[in-house]
Amino acid sequence: MLGTARRLLIGRPIPTHRLEFEKLAILGGLAVFAADALSSVAYGPEEILHILHLAGPAGLRCLLPLAVAIAALILVVATSYRQTVVEYPSGGGAYVVARDNLGAAPSHVAGAALLTDYVLTVAVSVAAGVAAITSAWPELHGHRVLIGVLCVVIVMLVNLRGVRESAVVFAAPVYTFILVMLALVVVGLLRVALGGLRSVGGAPEVAQGAHVWQPLTAFLVLRAFASGGATLTGIEAVANGVQAFRTPSGLNAARVLALMAALLAVMFLGTSALAHLVGTVPLESETVLSQLGRLVFGRGAIYFVLQMSTALILILAANTSFADFPRLSAFMARDGYLPRQLTNLGDRLVYSNGIIALAALAIGLIVAFGGKVTALIPLYAVGVFTAFTLSQSGMVLHWVREGGPGWRRRAVVNGIGAVVTGVVLVVVAVTKFVLGAWIVCVVIPLLVLAFRTVRRHYDFVASRLTLEHATAVRPLRNLNLLLVGGMHRGTLEGLQYLKALSGNGRAVHIETGGEPDPRVQRLWSEWEPDIPLVTLPSPYRVMAAPLVDYINHVREAEGFDVVTVILPEFVVRTWWESLLHNHSALWLQIVLRHVPGVAVLNMRYEL
Amino acid sequence: MLGTARRLLIGRPIPTHRLEFEKLAILGGLAVFAADALSSVAYGPEEILHILHLAGPAGLRCLLPLAVAIAALILVVATSYRQTVVEYPSGGGAYVVARDNLGAAPSHVAGAALLTDYVLTVAVSVAAGVAAITSAWPELHGHRVLIGVLCVVIVMLVNLRGVRESAVVFAAPVYTFILVMLALVVVGLLRVALGGLRSVGGAPEVAQGAHVWQPLTAFLVLRAFASGGATLTGIEAVANGVQAFRTPSGLNAARVLALMAALLAVMFLGTSALAHLVGTVPLESETVLSQLGRLVFGRGAIYFVLQMSTALILILAANTSFADFPRLSAFMARDGYLPRQLTNLGDRLVYSNGIIALAALAIGLIVAFGGKVTALIPLYAVGVFTAFTLSQSGMVLHWVREGGPGWRRRAVVNGIGAVVTGVVLVVVAVTKFVLGAWIVCVVIPLLVLAFRTVRRHYDFVASRLTLEHATAVRPLRNLNLLLVGGMHRGTLEGLQYLKALSGNGRAVHIETGGEPDPRVQRLWSEWEPDIPLVTLPSPYRVMAAPLVDYINHVREAEGFDVVTVILPEFVVRTWWESLLHNHSALWLQIVLRHVPGVAVLNMRYEL
Repeated sequence: MLGTARRLLIGRPIPTHRLEFEKLAILGGLAVFAADALSSVAYGPEEILHILHLAGPAGLRCLLPLAVAIAALILVVATSYRQTVVEYPSGGGAYVVARDNLGAAPSHVAGAALLTDYVLTVAVSVAAGVAAITSAWPELHGHRVLIGVLCVVIVMLVNLRGVRESAVVFAAPVYTFILVMLALVVVGLLRVALGGLRSVGGAPEVAQGAHVWQPLTAFLVLRAFASGGATLTGIEAVANGVQAFRTPSGLNAARVLALMAALLAVMFLGTSALAHLVGTVPLESETVLSQLGRLVFGRGAIYFVLQMSTALILILAANTSFADFPRLSAFMARDGYLPRQLTNLGDRLVYSNGIIALAALAIGLIVAFGGKVTALIPLYAVGVFTAFTLSQSGMVLHWVREGGPGWRRRAVVNGIGAVVTGVVLVVVAVTKFVLGAWIVCVVIPLLVLAFRTVRRHYDFVASRLTLEHATAVRPLRNLNLLLVGGMHRGTLEGLQYLKALSGNGRAVHIETGGEPDPRVQRLWSEWEPDIPLVTLPSPYRVMAAPLVDYINHVREAEGFDVVTVILPEFVVRTWWESLLHNHSALWLQIVLRHVPGVAVLNMRYEL
Repeated sequence: MLGTARRLLIGRPIPTHRLEFEKLAILGGLAVFAADALSSVAYGPEEILHILHLAGPAGLRCLLPLAVAIAALILVVATSYRQTVVEYPSGGGAYVVARDNLGAAPSHVAGAALLTDYVLTVAVSVAAGVAAITSAWPELHGHRVLIGVLCVVIVMLVNLRGVRESAVVFAAPVYTFILVMLALVVVGLLRVALGGLRSVGGAPEVAQGAHVWQPLTAFLVLRAFASGGATLTGIEAVANGVQAFRTPSGLNAARVLALMAALLAVMFLGTSALAHLVGTVPLESETVLSQLGRLVFGRGAIYFVLQMSTALILILAANTSFADFPRLSAFMARDGYLPRQLTNLGDRLVYSNGIIALAALAIGLIVAFGGKVTALIPLYAVGVFTAFTLSQSGMVLHWVREGGPGWRRRAVVNGIGAVVTGVVLVVVAVTKFVLGAWIVCVVIPLLVLAFRTVRRHYDFVASRLTLEHATAVRPLRNLNLLLVGGMHRGTLEGLQYLKALSGNGRAVHIETGGEPDPRVQRLWSEWEPDIPLVTLPSPYRVMAAPLVDYINHVREAEGFDVVTVILPEFVVRTWWESLLHNHSALWLQIVLRHVPGVAVLNMRYEL
């Protein structure tokens, strides 16, 4: 039954040799890896406007220059990352690049920053998508935690079905969003150019915020820039997921990255320009994107599609994390920094344990914060830019060390990337520190500590398991000890089995009734005159203690190295029938696990 | 740590040979077994007055005759039961008597009725005691479920410490209640006789209920009688718990029974007479007992002791059930009608599983009904009188069959008991049917059905385990199969062990990585040239399926009867370390449990 449910939800298992076939080409790659980055367009310009608006009309005029700066930043980072994915075709995420070029500590910081980001991305983007849904249907507002959890579970299940499956399922909404956003920009700009659109500006009475404008300081502009910088989150997704692409994986990933960066820059710049031209101001009641859509398309079908696909792309940003988190954690687990189980390929050739872990962590956040996770947003810009900076710096060192044709040019490209993202990191960290970015300074060191503790354990295990100083196999003396509860047909099966094992054999009966039952001894001798039955008194009516005492005695007095305890157990047909039996075998096994020199043998017989 | 908590809560284990010493003499027996019966005095007269009061002053005049009738009933039932406990010194409850004299079906009905009653008694009496406490401290009212659960847990823990312990702990409140009640009756009647007490009657305006009195019909009188009949609950407790008494258990039990019946009759008759003489009417705001106490003792220390010990005796009525339920369920489990675990004697020589089961069921009822369990009261009078009637009828048949000196007289005594309790059963069932007594007609048949299903299972198991048609022990061929995950020191320990087992041995490695790892094969051959290592490909990356296939193949093709799979597993030091490992051995074991012809051997090695 469990197997059937699994088949239905996740699908039939895929054999290992189909690994290559299950990978993504360019269209699928864009659907999976662009969702996170592109979803930023839904809130990026708005975040900038929110800050700038504090300085009134003078502030709003800075939108366009800032948008140009961020588009430039997108192109710089993307160019820099393109070089990385081509150079690291087996996965060029910040963790791997930092590990190979900067050393263990920076790679742990990068890994911790990215893993935290992925979890936050899932929680935040799903919560944002759910908020968009509950804005449209306010009666669902009370169920937003449940809806959020359901969304995470759905995305999780699709990802457990495999990465190709997730590309197929989620391609339609991603491409719809791309098309409708491009249409918005093109139609909007055309209508402005043709004079068909009237400015919505000049209505400061509907604008939110203080009417006593703040001065337009450099810090305010930097804060606005830092807020817009969140747009870049997701741009590293391709680099961390190169493994998911078909051969040549590096080139395919590079193509998707270029395409994604171009789309992101165009969409970001386009909507910002449009917002500037029509003089949009941020409102409490309506998003900037909705204002633009309403103005350009009117309240028709296209506007509805824009709103729906915006809500969907927000939720699907989570899908990108589901593609990256399991891969990154598998990388780190392979290096011994995370539990080994994260490297297990599941039924559908994905890292199922990582997918489930990510879903569990994100659901935990959504539930803990009651679905109101916007407070977490400042956190992840810091993580993303930390990873960017480490990755790009690592690449600079890589080129310097490795050389190769054109290494100087490449080092310069990555160097520019490193400097730019490093500066942005400082700006983001400073401007957002009190808003919560400080939490990162607590979480990342804790995670790094955890990585090292895990690694220390695996190193210890490996040191104990190495064959290097192993001595030759030494002969051991083993005693087989059959536990006899009473004389019945199951005991005969146990006896048969004891004889089949050959070697030293003995039977043992634990007397819990207070006085010996001569019947057991007599019947045993009738059936088996050769193998002795030892009766152990148990004044406290327990099974384990007398047995353990006897085993220790036998090992010491008779020189046995190992005692194999045979626990016969009969099999019942249903769960309620199993409630009707004592399960002494199970309890004994739990106790005997901790007794040195004991092996436990479960012998089950059908009734 | 778990062991220490257990020591602290329950005490050190007691060896089986101390069984006799742990039993009860007369004083302890009265403390344990009288609590339930005596607690009835706290509400019995009041219940009668409640009904009679419906018919106004004319009705209230019937109190004394009814009290006399009930006291007579108490003496008849007690006399009848005295004969039973002497005759059945190993436990003369309704179940055993019905089983031995009336057959299986009546004994099941008696057992079901009694078990239900015990559970209801715990829930109802604890809830009543808690209600008395929350009347005194109304701020605790919101926590009544929690307090009730805590009371059940405390009584449970004391009972898990042993029956003698429960007698010691609970003797003080029981004897205090007896003394203060006797003082109430004696002082009260003396003061009435000396004219020192004035009637509280003649104030119908404070009386509750309709002022349009109902006619004093025979049905009303019967209803009042049936309500008062609840006083008899608990009188059978001694008979079900004869085993708890020291030798001569039958005689000791009979003495306690006589003492208890006398006390009960005196206290019941005395308080009823007092209530009649001073003209007490039932009030919403104050119990009849409290009115009498206040009148006789004034609002002083003795009144306070009366109220407190009344609340305590109500809670301690539960203790009587804790003495009886585990014994009865052990009896029935020994006959195969209940799970066998109920016959296990725990650390302190009590049937711990039965004690825990009773506590769990009662807590379930208290939680399910939110602490308001008074609705359940009508249920248990029916059960009690069913058990009475069956037990006494059984005794009549017993005397007729067995004969012996004075058997006719004895048969007549039990016959009178049977007829009287039978009549009361009909009265109770009819008058309380719509009030919930019908539920008993649903629950008891369901329980009887459950008993039979359980018994059928045990019969089936026994039929399969009997040695009667067993054939001689037949030689089996066994193959030892060592599971090799990789080549490390643990594998060498496994190999050592495989050799120590002697007999046919083979090693097997499951290849989940997609392509064979020649290193494992090569290293194995280096260490062990004789025993072959078989590599099984696993295209779906699972462990179990290829192993099961191979086992089936080996059993069919090579004629092995049993395959013993050796699963080596290393031991880590802490729980978090164990989270870092795959536990494939555990998973494999769960799957292999269901494969016929396979024994699983757990071999653990320290790192």
